[in-house]
Amino acid sequence: MAIKLYGTAASTNVLRVMACLAEKELDYEFVNVNMSNKEHKSPEFLSRNPFGQVPAFEDGDLKLFESRAITQYLAHTYPDNGTNLIIHDPKKMAIVGVWIEVEAQKFDRFGSKLAWELAYKPMFGLTTDETVVEEHEKNLEQVLDVYESRLSESKYLGGDCFTLADLHHLPVLKYLFGTKAKRLFDARPHVSAWAADIQSRPAWVKAITA
Amino acid sequence: MAIKLYGTAASTNVLRVMACLAEKELDYEFVNVNMSNKEHKSPEFLSRNPFGQVPAFEDGDLKLFESRAITQYLAHTYPDNGTNLIIHDPKKMAIVGVWIEVEAQKFDRFGSKLAWELAYKPMFGLTTDETVVEEHEKNLEQVLDVYESRLSESKYLGGDCFTLADLHHLPVLKYLFGTKAKRLFDARPHVSAWAADIQSRPAWVKAITA
Repeated sequence: MAIKLYGTAASTNVLRVMACLAEKELDYEFVNVNMSNKEHKSPEFLSRNPFGQVPAFEDGDLKLFESRAITQYLAHTYPDNGTNLIIHDPKKMAIVGVWIEVEAQKFDRFGSKLAWELAYKPMFGLTTDETVVEEHEKNLEQVLDVYESRLSESKYLGGDCFTLADLHHLPVLKYLFGTKAKRLFDARPHVSAWAADIQSRPAWVKAITA
Repeated sequence: MAIKLYGTAASTNVLRVMACLAEKELDYEFVNVNMSNKEHKSPEFLSRNPFGQVPAFEDGDLKLFESRAITQYLAHTYPDNGTNLIIHDPKKMAIVGVWIEVEAQKFDRFGSKLAWELAYKPMFGLTTDETVVEEHEKNLEQVLDVYESRLSESKYLGGDCFTLADLHHLPVLKYLFGTKAKRLFDARPHVSAWAADIQSRPAWVKAITA
């Protein structure tokens, strides 16, 4: 099979690519990387991702890493498959680009740390640091206040339709919604409706139950 | 003038856009935002950037924020002006996309914190936290080790030519090169040659001396 995704489905960064592949209705081979055996630090894996992190990706002879670079590649290279996740009008796409950056630079920065403290640490038998939780909940709330305002005037972050800007949030949302941080979303009606909408997309449901 | 850039040239995020505008040889109006007067938190500015951060940008009726979204817009919308900063071949552009993400997710995360501790804090009369410096120097060194390997096989991060993936580094490089962190670059021959090359580009020299 031409497309291969290397990683573990427990990783939010791998799930981001899986969400995109599902929306694009692309077949692929999932190659499990055993991180507890440090397989991601092996020379073979480092040749796929020199930072020794998942995911790594290949499409024929093209090798990529960094989840958001992979989703951009898929969205641009397979425009006619499944859901269109970009907008071809350059000005409208520039707005989508702004919210893609907001997710990467702001939402993910705080959301991932909260997911680590509240979801992953308990799974690994580690103790949640409530001081870190409090600090990042406050940071995330400021981001979600901006989202609430944006989503009161636009159905999706990038505009009228679902794009990469929304899709990139799904993995961290999935983990945060299983923790007390869900209340930060519930408290904001437009954010809450948006999060429910994107999490109920058939492609996403398929990606996380496959 | 159609293009307006709002901010202060002391900000690395504003400088990133200035670097791009200079490479694209685009005329623009620079609108200074007085951050010591909290002008970036005013309702007028928040309508341009809801996070109350610089830069904000407009091109006619299009309003954008997030420096990397603005540079992407400029590179895609003005392909025939100045330097071409993207590659039209989708597979080659996907590789550029990987290194654009690496800058944003890895280099900038550590580089910006070091620039804050080593360059900005002394300017503002604040005390540098050497523990933070030590931690982030270690993190940055790991990133630069990967860059050293990449730049031993490729003249620029994204491939054979200078692209947004290189350009996005310039502002943080400028600040770090005035501090002891410069030695981390000097110690790696390919990184050092690349940093000297991109910092000597006429458009960049013009951008920082304008």
